[in-house]
Order: sequence, then structure tokens, then C-alpha cells
Amino acid sequence: MSEPQKKYDVVIIGGGPAGLSAGIYTARARLSSLLIERGAVGGQIINTEWVENYPGFTESISGIALTEAMHKQATKFGLETLIAEVKGLKITGKRKVVQTSQGNFNAVAVIIAGGSDRQKLGVPGEAEYTGKGVSYCATCDGPFFRDKPVVVVGGGNAAITEAIELTKFASKIIVIHRRNELRATKIVQEKAFAEKKIEFLWDSVVEEISGDTFVEKIKVRNVKTGKTSTLKVEGVFVSVGSKPLTGYLKGILELEANGSVVVGNNMETSVPGIFAAGDIRSNSIRQVVSAAGDGAIAAVNAGKYLGE
Amino acid sequence: MSEPQKKYDVVIIGGGPAGLSAGIYTARARLSSLLIERGAVGGQIINTEWVENYPGFTESISGIALTEAMHKQATKFGLETLIAEVKGLKITGKRKVVQTSQGNFNAVAVIIAGGSDRQKLGVPGEAEYTGKGVSYCATCDGPFFRDKPVVVVGGGNAAITEAIELTKFASKIIVIHRRNELRATKIVQEKAFAEKKIEFLWDSVVEEISGDTFVEKIKVRNVKTGKTSTLKVEGVFVSVGSKPLTGYLKGILELEANGSVVVGNNMETSVPGIFAAGDIRSNSIRQVVSAAGDGAIAAVNAGKYLGE
Repeated sequence: MSEPQKKYDVVIIGGGPAGLSAGIYTARARLSSLLIERGAVGGQIINTEWVENYPGFTESISGIALTEAMHKQATKFGLETLIAEVKGLKITGKRKVVQTSQGNFNAVAVIIAGGSDRQKLGVPGEAEYTGKGVSYCATCDGPFFRDKPVVVVGGGNAAITEAIELTKFASKIIVIHRRNELRATKIVQEKAFAEKKIEFLWDSVVEEISGDTFVEKIKVRNVKTGKTSTLKVEGVFVSVGSKPLTGYLKGILELEANGSVVVGNNMETSVPGIFAAGDIRSNSIRQVVSAAGDGAIAAVNAGKYLGE
Repeated sequence: MSEPQKKYDVVIIGGGPAGLSAGIYTARARLSSLLIERGAVGGQIINTEWVENYPGFTESISGIALTEAMHKQATKFGLETLIAEVKGLKITGKRKVVQTSQGNFNAVAVIIAGGSDRQKLGVPGEAEYTGKGVSYCATCDGPFFRDKPVVVVGGGNAAITEAIELTKFASKIIVIHRRNELRATKIVQEKAFAEKKIEFLWDSVVEEISGDTFVEKIKVRNVKTGKTSTLKVEGVFVSVGSKPLTGYLKGILELEANGSVVVGNNMETSVPGIFAAGDIRSNSIRQVVSAAGDGAIAAVNAGKYLGE
């Protein structure tokens, strides 16, 4: 391992709302701070055209505009940003080394805010209609589908909970699941079976999503018979799992079975001086404001750790 | 006890950023939601003229404008607001009764977001110059005092930690303490004693704060000799404690020794269906964005509890 290139008080891994909020707080507190993002600053929310539940914005704001503002704010306070892939994290006493595709960085406190990869269906039309009928979050987008027919793809707890939540908005919810029984817990299943608005399409997978400006229909294939059919729907909620981006943290930090980072209510992890925030932490509700709140909490506690 | 007047899915106690964010989330999820605030909606932050660290606002925004926007947003989604004093909370199986000066309200989930009372000095000029040189939070306002002389009033951990944090900004920090030794832990004391910018004025209390538009000087009295003196300062950081408003929760929920509500990282309290958010919860960093994040987390988990 080559020598670390540069020392910082705090290195923040991930440039979504959690990392940006952490950066606003650490930089404003005059801690030397580097934010490392592998792709575009902003995180998953940049794919969302209308955010109407981030507190303080009476009118909807686009995910891009919101996170651009956060980045500008953090940069104004002195946050540095680097585009690089994080490869590893080494703990050497009080200092830590963050290893990246652009070299190594040395920090006293590290804030892990790298988010998660939502599993995609990988079918034609999915990327094209994301934010235009295709959604990965009922809490975020459910209210946009009032009195419209939608499908939910998946059979686990998250999928069925989303289907139940959507009964408050959608005219009809068809759950499409590749097996002939749900993985969701019994109590969640029973609640879904009791909902008049929810129907089930078993042994089926979505093959294509199409429409004009917005989603209008999907092609579904029965995996047992091979037959395909077309459903007219205006929303497709994909809930087939998500993976916290914590591969490089195995054996270093305590992780949940699903890969998320175990934190307490100070966002502290199992290693002193390492904090986690946003979608990557245990029990995240995957919202912009909770990620931003987490980031600020991690930052203030990172500052305390630096002062110890 | 008279019969509960009205049933809600969720009652939110407190109308600061935590309660308002919770209301945005519960109302938008179409849970019938009542927010109860004893004074003015907005919470403590309405006394702050410039908030520059709430993520998403590149320009500073006033605490009033920010929380008015949050309230408008929540109201648009269907949140009801009541001005009343909460007197008690009764748990009757899955439903809870919130007792107020305006009658009783019945809810399945309760979100406690009533904040805390920051202890005041109670001296002339303190109220008048709040936000104009008088501050109760170095993390919030420290950066506004770059190269200016300030005092910190108090001798506990919070006060001394704030004094240390202020060394990054202020030209000089005088800690004014009514005793001749600090209550702060040894390690914090030692760090403060080693800081060249920090001086100590022992056995002393602030008697008056004065100035023109902003703070210019304070009158200090030595409690042993009775002598008074005048100090030219531009900032007065008051750190003499704060009290979470949880008197009515004693014996009902698990509280910390300081009165804050013990929560886990889902903002759940020791009683199922009761959540806490913002300054009132254990380990709060007392920031608008963390309060708003907490509120959203409490709201989403309240929704899950309702679905169980």
C-alpha cells in the first residue's frame, strides 16, 4: 500500500443527501472535509422529477435541483469533492485510510453515506419510464397515482407493504410475483389478501414497460405456461430488493444480514470514529430528509470524536 | 375523565420542525393527523433570523419562513393543527388518549416532538438581543462570529464544548461561570485550558446585555466581591442547560436522567406506538434538519405500527 496522499479531518463516502448534509455540517464547523462520490453528485434522488415531501419546499422541487443546492451550500463552506471509487477502508489507530481509484486519503473520522443499489427489473422501458410511471418507492411517489391502476412487482415484505400503502391512492393494485406464494410474513400477507383493491398475478414476470410520455401498459409473461399478456396500468412499483453498497466494509464494521451498516441513534457504527448515514444505515426509511438528518447527526458526532 | 372528543390515526405533540416534518409524512400518507402546539407553530427556530445550514437552501432563510413553509406543506396534505397545551397521555391498549387544555384526543400512534426549554439567564437585554448577538447554540451560530470577541456563560460540558468549538471562529472567548471550578469532565476542561483563545472569569454572573442593533457589551458581577465590571463583546453564548418538555411523560415512557425521551434509531420509545423526534429525544443534536429527519422517521414508523 502506498502512503496516503492527503490528510483530512473527515472523509465522507457518498454524495447523496446524507453525504452532502454531512459535508455542510463538517465544512461549516471548519473541519477539513473531503466528499468522495463514484458517479454523479446527488445520489438516487437525481432520478426523481418531483420531490414534494422534503420539508421547507412548498412547491415540488426536482431531485437534481435540491441536491445541486446542497452541494453548492457545502462547497461554499469549504467541502472538497472528488469523483472516485472507494475500494477499501483501513483502520490504523485513531486515523483511517480510505482507499480509492484515485489514491488513498487519510482521515480521523469517516462518514459512510454510499447509499444502496435498488435492484432493477432489467426490462425494456424500465429506465426510460423511471420517474414517468416507474417508481421504486411508494412512500415517495404513491400520492402521484391517485385513482390510477398500478402494479407492484415483488413478493417480499417490502413489496406487499408498498401494495397496502398504495391502496390509499391507486384505483387498483396488481401484485405481480414470479412464484405462486409470497415471501412476506403471514400478518402482512393476510392484510393484503383482505384488501379489495389488491389483486395477485402469480407465476408472472414483467417483460416490457411501454407508453407515450408516461407508462400506459406492461407486457407480462407467465413463467409456467409461457403465455404473455398485456396490462393497462399507469404505475409500476418495482420492489425486488435493494443492496446497501457495503461490500468493502465486510469484516470491518458490524453489518445487518441485508448488508446495511448497524448504527445507534448518534449514527455511530461498531468502530469509533466511523459513522453511517442515509440509505446505507440500518433501518433507513430511504427519504431525502431522513438521509439529510442522518448526515448532520453523523457530522456533529464526528466533530465530537475529533475533539476527544 | 370525559370521553375523547375525536379519533385520529396519529396525534403529533409539538409544532417545530420535527412535528411539522412528521405531519408532512403522516398526512401525505393519508393518515388522519392532528398536530398540537402550545404556542406558535415553528418552535424555537422562529427566533433565529438566519439559518444557513438547512440543506437545500443556498441562501440563508429565516427560521420563521422555513417553518411557515413546512406548515403550509403539511396543511396542504391534510394535517390539522390545534393550539392547546398537552396535559397528559394515557395508554389504553393500542389506542392512546392525549389530554389537552382543549379536550381529549384519541390516537393509535403518538409522535412526541415538543422540544425543550433552553434555560435563560433572565437578565435585561437577553430577550431583546436574541438572534442579535445572544445565542443558545454554537453549532448553529458560531460561524456568524468570525474574529469577534464573545463570552460563553456556563461551566458544564455543553458550555465548555461550545467554547472550544468557538475557537474556530471567535477572536477571543471568555467563559463566565458562577463558581470557581467547572462541572465539565476533566478531559474537556484540559482541552479548554490549553486553548489560547479561551479565558475564564470565575465566580461571576452576567447582569445585563446591551448594545445598539447588536450586542456591544455586558455587565458582569463577581458574586464573591459584589463588584461589577463591563466587558465589550459582540456575542453572548448562553449554555446553562435545557429541559426537555417531558414532565407529563414521567412514569409513562422511559426517560433519560436529563428528561429526554429514550429512542432507538426508528425513533421508537419504550411504549409501542409512541415515537419521539427532535430536541426532546435522547442524543438530539438540536438542529432543524435532524429534527425534520427524526420527524419523518417517526412518521413512517408510526404508519407501519398502524398497519400492524
